[in-house]
Amino acid sequence: MSATAAQPAVYYTGNKQFSLERVTPVEPVAGEVRIEVAYCGICGTDLHVYLGHMDPRIGDHRVIGHEMSGTVDAVGEGVDDWRVGDRIVVRPLDACGECPSCRRGYRHVCQKLKFLGLDTDGAFQAYWNVPAHTLHAVPDTLPLDLAALIEPAAVAAHDVRRGRVALGEDVLVIGGGPIGMLVALVAQGAGANVTVSEINEHRLAMAEAFGFATLNPKLADPVETIMASTGGKGMDVVFEVSGTQPGVDLMTAVSATRGRIVMVAIHASKPSIDLFQFFWKEIEMLGARVYEPEDYDAAIRFVAANTDTARLLITSVKSLEDLQAAFEELAGNPESMKTLIQCSETAR
Amino acid sequence: MSATAAQPAVYYTGNKQFSLERVTPVEPVAGEVRIEVAYCGICGTDLHVYLGHMDPRIGDHRVIGHEMSGTVDAVGEGVDDWRVGDRIVVRPLDACGECPSCRRGYRHVCQKLKFLGLDTDGAFQAYWNVPAHTLHAVPDTLPLDLAALIEPAAVAAHDVRRGRVALGEDVLVIGGGPIGMLVALVAQGAGANVTVSEINEHRLAMAEAFGFATLNPKLADPVETIMASTGGKGMDVVFEVSGTQPGVDLMTAVSATRGRIVMVAIHASKPSIDLFQFFWKEIEMLGARVYEPEDYDAAIRFVAANTDTARLLITSVKSLEDLQAAFEELAGNPESMKTLIQCSETAR
Repeated sequence: MSATAAQPAVYYTGNKQFSLERVTPVEPVAGEVRIEVAYCGICGTDLHVYLGHMDPRIGDHRVIGHEMSGTVDAVGEGVDDWRVGDRIVVRPLDACGECPSCRRGYRHVCQKLKFLGLDTDGAFQAYWNVPAHTLHAVPDTLPLDLAALIEPAAVAAHDVRRGRVALGEDVLVIGGGPIGMLVALVAQGAGANVTVSEINEHRLAMAEAFGFATLNPKLADPVETIMASTGGKGMDVVFEVSGTQPGVDLMTAVSATRGRIVMVAIHASKPSIDLFQFFWKEIEMLGARVYEPEDYDAAIRFVAANTDTARLLITSVKSLEDLQAAFEELAGNPESMKTLIQCSETAR
Repeated sequence: MSATAAQPAVYYTGNKQFSLERVTPVEPVAGEVRIEVAYCGICGTDLHVYLGHMDPRIGDHRVIGHEMSGTVDAVGEGVDDWRVGDRIVVRPLDACGECPSCRRGYRHVCQKLKFLGLDTDGAFQAYWNVPAHTLHAVPDTLPLDLAALIEPAAVAAHDVRRGRVALGEDVLVIGGGPIGMLVALVAQGAGANVTVSEINEHRLAMAEAFGFATLNPKLADPVETIMASTGGKGMDVVFEVSGTQPGVDLMTAVSATRGRIVMVAIHASKPSIDLFQFFWKEIEMLGARVYEPEDYDAAIRFVAANTDTARLLITSVKSLEDLQAAFEELAGNPESMKTLIQCSETAR
């Protein structure tokens, strides 16, 4: 279906407000495709936008949203690899290709990176024009609602790859929100013995249902528990996804000799860290940010192979009209996993 | 020469005091050798012992010292690889072989590691009995005073290996003391472009003489300087050897995308650290402690191939009788590099 009439698009306008507007879809320019957006999940970063934390970057008239799935609706000049109707997800990164990071092969952390849906308009709208190089194909067997989980699953796949998680290793995930739970699932898929540390009982119950060992550091000493369960060795890989000082304290305390810590959380403050433990146990810490193309490939395979699990991560599906209410609800609900927004009528 | 008469040994006795005593050398037991110690350098750790920081571990009657060289004076039963007169250095680590770290191949950071010269008596004495497995041969061409630098050079070789320093990379060493200077020299030997950050003008002058770029963060903004000199890329590898909060601030600020930070310093406090930079630039941090056997092999080759440089690192040579004075002088002198103690009459 090709779009001609005005279509819904939701703009963040500052001060915790979104505004539903009607815009006429524009034709894709050379190298672009126009997407009919099916679903778009609400990311933790989107919540930061809603709360006003990113106003200097975002401005006050921006369509956000990037955890999406959809179909190609129109292709611009010179786009030979995609056809109208192709089922796709977007890897929402547009690198400059010229900075020192790009030149060294790290385009995903380009020093002038444009993140689609933050630095440009995003997917909380019915139609979305993006560079064709950002597309990945979705398997025919994978429903588009589940495909909206590919972007956060790619974050998890990147984190697990950075941590070099191997078969049989003991892995701790600190923080059982959507990203932490996906990291745990992908690490479990890589053959690790996964423990999730979390203080929310609802999330702990979900982690147990997924087959993870769990611990609640408010109820029992997590260091004693982990040292006992690993025979004094500690954790081979720790994912710090909590963004908290207790999380940072725990990660060094339970890391094994030569353990790897993957820094997934965005720590806006500068926490105190036990650097002596890095020296003493020769700990390695690896920062991890977004994803590279192969992480998208891995995430697509992961979601397609684990559709039952993926469906359990979707807390609710709402319409674009309900976006404002969805953000208000999420901001006050620490138990929710993934809220999807259905962005077009034909989403299926 | 075989020892029978009482011989000098200097004991740390607490409260910044050393006591020169006379002890009769004992025969090496099975698996041991007796070393006639030639030279033993004063390590930063020895200075910590002198200052009382390690009393709970050291006690009040302990011969310390481990940066040594010497000759084999007697061999115990079952020691087939060494003969009287062999010129050697000791790798002062005695691992349990049974803990989780040892079982995983990390014997140098054994969870019950005995460090010779801290947990057992060390080398500030004329004769020293050690397990034969700790010995490495010193090349005939290498004088034994320079061979006493092999132990700290092995620390540096381990640090550089942990940092995976490669030809042509930009390397920053934060802190130009003896270990920092050796790290810089070994990294330079690996083909890196090395910059040393240091606030002591005497050490800066020595770094310049060794061919390093230098910067004094008290005189110019080190971040601006480094970003300009690397075309906005930042440093590929940063060695934090200062043990200070400004050093920890600098290491994250100047690290390149996917840069490696090697944590060499022993941070007794828990500094504040900019974890956001780890996420944003996907920085990797690697703790590094002591050395593995191959680091000793590398250090022996390095010192033997760089005798002129090694000699410049030796600030002074003193006798066992002057050990107390040597520690007092070092404690008040931030400019000194390496002080060696000549431990036996026949040292040559």
